[in-house]
Amino acid sequence: MDSLTVTFEDYGIEAPAEAGETILEVAGRVGAGIASYCGGQGTCQQCQVVVTSGTVQPKDEARWQQWLTPDGKGIKVLACQSVISEDITVKVPIGSRTEDFIVHEMEPLKPNLVDLSRFEPLSPLAQQFVLDLPKPTLEDTVTDMERLRRELLNVEAELEPLTIDLPVLRQLPQALRENDFQVAVAVSDIGLARKISAIRPPAAADSSLGLAIDVGTSTVAVQLVDLDNGKVVGRAIRRNGQIAYGEDVISRIVWTQKGPEQLQSMHQAIIDTLNDILGHLYDEHNTAPDEVIAASVAGNATMINFLLRIDATPIRRSPHTPPATKMPVITAEELGLNIYPQGAVCVCHPAVSGFVGGDITAGVVATGMHEAEELALLVDVGTNGEIVAGNKDWLMCASCSAGPAFEGVGVEAAMPATAGAVTRFRYDRNKDAVEYESVAGQSPRGICGSGLVEMIASLAETDVIDRTGNINSDFPSERICKRNGELGFTLFWPDETARDEPIIIYQHDIENLLRSKAAVLAGISVLLNKLDLATTDVEQMYLAGAFGAGLDVDKAVAIGLLPDIPRERLNVVGNSALAGAYLTLMSRQAREQAQKTVSAMTYLDLSSDTDFMDEFIASNFIPHTDLSRFPSVDM
Amino acid sequence: MDSLTVTFEDYGIEAPAEAGETILEVAGRVGAGIASYCGGQGTCQQCQVVVTSGTVQPKDEARWQQWLTPDGKGIKVLACQSVISEDITVKVPIGSRTEDFIVHEMEPLKPNLVDLSRFEPLSPLAQQFVLDLPKPTLEDTVTDMERLRRELLNVEAELEPLTIDLPVLRQLPQALRENDFQVAVAVSDIGLARKISAIRPPAAADSSLGLAIDVGTSTVAVQLVDLDNGKVVGRAIRRNGQIAYGEDVISRIVWTQKGPEQLQSMHQAIIDTLNDILGHLYDEHNTAPDEVIAASVAGNATMINFLLRIDATPIRRSPHTPPATKMPVITAEELGLNIYPQGAVCVCHPAVSGFVGGDITAGVVATGMHEAEELALLVDVGTNGEIVAGNKDWLMCASCSAGPAFEGVGVEAAMPATAGAVTRFRYDRNKDAVEYESVAGQSPRGICGSGLVEMIASLAETDVIDRTGNINSDFPSERICKRNGELGFTLFWPDETARDEPIIIYQHDIENLLRSKAAVLAGISVLLNKLDLATTDVEQMYLAGAFGAGLDVDKAVAIGLLPDIPRERLNVVGNSALAGAYLTLMSRQAREQAQKTVSAMTYLDLSSDTDFMDEFIASNFIPHTDLSRFPSVDM
Repeated sequence: MDSLTVTFEDYGIEAPAEAGETILEVAGRVGAGIASYCGGQGTCQQCQVVVTSGTVQPKDEARWQQWLTPDGKGIKVLACQSVISEDITVKVPIGSRTEDFIVHEMEPLKPNLVDLSRFEPLSPLAQQFVLDLPKPTLEDTVTDMERLRRELLNVEAELEPLTIDLPVLRQLPQALRENDFQVAVAVSDIGLARKISAIRPPAAADSSLGLAIDVGTSTVAVQLVDLDNGKVVGRAIRRNGQIAYGEDVISRIVWTQKGPEQLQSMHQAIIDTLNDILGHLYDEHNTAPDEVIAASVAGNATMINFLLRIDATPIRRSPHTPPATKMPVITAEELGLNIYPQGAVCVCHPAVSGFVGGDITAGVVATGMHEAEELALLVDVGTNGEIVAGNKDWLMCASCSAGPAFEGVGVEAAMPATAGAVTRFRYDRNKDAVEYESVAGQSPRGICGSGLVEMIASLAETDVIDRTGNINSDFPSERICKRNGELGFTLFWPDETARDEPIIIYQHDIENLLRSKAAVLAGISVLLNKLDLATTDVEQMYLAGAFGAGLDVDKAVAIGLLPDIPRERLNVVGNSALAGAYLTLMSRQAREQAQKTVSAMTYLDLSSDTDFMDEFIASNFIPHTDLSRFPSVDM
Repeated sequence: MDSLTVTFEDYGIEAPAEAGETILEVAGRVGAGIASYCGGQGTCQQCQVVVTSGTVQPKDEARWQQWLTPDGKGIKVLACQSVISEDITVKVPIGSRTEDFIVHEMEPLKPNLVDLSRFEPLSPLAQQFVLDLPKPTLEDTVTDMERLRRELLNVEAELEPLTIDLPVLRQLPQALRENDFQVAVAVSDIGLARKISAIRPPAAADSSLGLAIDVGTSTVAVQLVDLDNGKVVGRAIRRNGQIAYGEDVISRIVWTQKGPEQLQSMHQAIIDTLNDILGHLYDEHNTAPDEVIAASVAGNATMINFLLRIDATPIRRSPHTPPATKMPVITAEELGLNIYPQGAVCVCHPAVSGFVGGDITAGVVATGMHEAEELALLVDVGTNGEIVAGNKDWLMCASCSAGPAFEGVGVEAAMPATAGAVTRFRYDRNKDAVEYESVAGQSPRGICGSGLVEMIASLAETDVIDRTGNINSDFPSERICKRNGELGFTLFWPDETARDEPIIIYQHDIENLLRSKAAVLAGISVLLNKLDLATTDVEQMYLAGAFGAGLDVDKAVAIGLLPDIPRERLNVVGNSALAGAYLTLMSRQAREQAQKTVSAMTYLDLSSDTDFMDEFIASNFIPHTDLSRFPSVDM
């Protein structure tokens, strides 16, 4: 046996290995967590690692790819395609680590966003009826299906027209007879009709659960909900496994254009992500997949197309229109979602356009701005930024390519708002020290959206960076550092962090963050301009997205992410898409509102708008080139 | 190599074989056609053969079954489960021969049964629209789906509400772009709504085909139809492959009760049968599966449940009600039917009860009796016998277990009305000779329904059999013969037949035929009695089913299959179920009529009726114990 050594430096593991093994195989054996979805086929691209010393051999010449890292010090390869022939040292970057794809608990949504009293009486997407059917006799010979229909209409006349799909009908005869004609029947609202979507033993009566799902480009969030009363049983988030195929929607679409197999992999990645989250929720809350009988899904147009395995290519090409914005009602079985298998319905929120998706219409329903007298502005900053302005009489929306910086992608020190994420940040120049808060009070592992906003604000306030975002190389602190000629600023020293590595913000990270915030601010400005409205006309502003409820809105205004409006009008609402999915899961009225919202919304295309480009450039400053627009900000 | 010999005596083949081979393997190698569906798994029961000399060994003790044949001269085994260890001789009985499952051309249906002028303007189950869509521009950004919908509604406003299923939606983006936004779109009528069910290149415009299907217990018939004008492109029949699992519906249901695997095999057998017929039609008419975009299916309740893989057990148990009589609209993909794969709809005719199926409601629509002033009687003799009486104001129906004798099952000399089947028969006592006609004028291979009726009538008329059906052992002809003590009558001598074997009718065959006809006649009598109607009140009588258009109605009355009514009121209509499926394929009005017919029909249960049992016994004579009921018959 020719014993070699693979050193996984991030994990402090020196693993014995045999020539001929792949890096992924060795890592799996010794517990050096490298993410992989495709089982080492070389297709999911998840297991990218950097070989910093020694060289590896291609497992399959045809599939072989390698790239020099930006610092020139390593070779990036796929762990599953790299065969060991000598001692090597391997770095597992953030994004390739199994831990980056761990499911996390999630904070509750803001109560005012998920206020079911707006929609009483409740009418969930799937409603459960516990029936004790009369048994067939020579005098009462109607079929199983008619027997069920008769009793359901007896209980609630409003269920007509009532349909059933073949997979559920196939279960009916046995389900009735095994349970002595006592069954728990789920009836789903599919818009045009009601559908019998699950037939379960009567014992299932108490476990009628549904899912509210937000399929974000970077992060996927799920709430497990009791359909009887809307109580949230559990909530969890995870990174979207599709990140392996590209960080933003456009690069993912480009990847799927290679062929149907790639579209299939992209589809499978989100299904796998969802099932991973579901598995976690089931374990945590002692729930079986069979108990979940409906799902309401919000997501941007590309995510929803991928979820349904529909070619999203048209979104990438002018005029950027997706194949469909209103999706057919589908079943868990069609998707491979691990819930009640035969007939549980999945309903996707309708989108307005390729870049204003169902996540935004869900957000509108959650804020209630479409029913209000006052002029409101909804700004959702995720991997993209979307903006809706309007009230009960009109709604106008736009989208801007903000980039996923605030979602923790494209910023080396960033991470989602999970354990160890820095949520609040202040640099004290006098003490050369950092004050911070983190999720679960753990030592810093990275910085999440709200922390990034405060960090930029604080570094600008203390002149670590100037108004253009440039790091001041003369700043009198040892925190100023350089990597391959690029300036950085050490936010946390190795002994302060969870990983014994420093957390550093580099110049290009700051530029990414500024571009993101500039796109959002420019989008808001141009949309208001087109409507002949001033910032001061906005009576309510809802900031949704990746920042978390803890965002300091003063800082968001200070860096010029948001316009300078009175703070009492500013509401940080968190994940409004998930809130909307929750409301539509629980209420037919909310589902109808989502549909109407789409029809009511006018889409403004900023991609071909020269005003937007001018505003974007002017907004690439802290807070803006025109300080008169930010009277409350003291720079 | 230990060379043994397997003699297939029916085929005149002496096949060399090795010890350890199965009979099925040897037969396959030398072309001795033994039917098998399950690939030699021992599950389909199709390959039953009789070993007449030598013995075989079980391939698998757990699966091993063997039966002594009625004549005690052979052992019946499954060819696939029988391993050769010595020289053997094998008989392949009718029903196990590959040739019995060959697809045959079929006669056209009676024109008055398929008169589309009753339903003009036509509105086929799937209607094709050839569209030239405007391409997306910055000014016209609606989605692919909305673009399609807009144009369809532009062409025909009646198409709302318009839906699409996910598998078809998945095809949309590519289909539009590959064809420069010119497409042939099929829109199906699913009752509650219309559904976009196929999107094809514009070249497909001329090939918009549909299927009318009659799934009979014994025989399956398919018409390939041009949906644009109703023209029948091709027609073919084949024995239902489910025969391997039982000859009638009850024995098949019993078999499926063994477990879900058996239900799956039963389902697969009918799908395989249909796809075999379709393959034949495609070859004959130079058609591709993609050209077929809809199917309308008639069949009895058990057949439809099996087609859809729904447990049919409740049909067997009192009160004999199937799980459902109105089936959901399904897609070819759900069934595995070899037509346009993604969305082509399959609609099943609704049934009235477990024993009055969609084949009967189809027959009612085809005869038009539900719209007529006059009192009509529809009698459909297939594997079961079903009877409908009524007019435009009321309809009443009943079913009787006729048994499949007239369909060529349970009568050794019988066969379907395909090449070589004797359709007309007269025994000339003076010449001791037989006059006959056969399908395609070929030498006799067996006798089909109409031939069986004429044969019974002729043998009774010439006193070969008496009024109870007993063969007269003293009849002065060498045609009288015996097998294991059972009397027989040689219909054709070996040199007259296609197979160089005599065709003989045995006592038990005649008894089976009499029981079949007695059940039908008793059903008619009891139904009319319950309605306080006399035979003479019947103004039109339609005889449908296995007899073929050539049936001599005088003979049918003479044997007491039909009541003695004026011959001009008697219409032999052939396959009225297939005719109904054809009409509903072509007309929405016909589809609505089929639904209404079901609601209008009252079902009379004969199974628990003592009058029926009395009538059945009295009818087990030629023509009946009470000759006063048959004044026109001279016995």
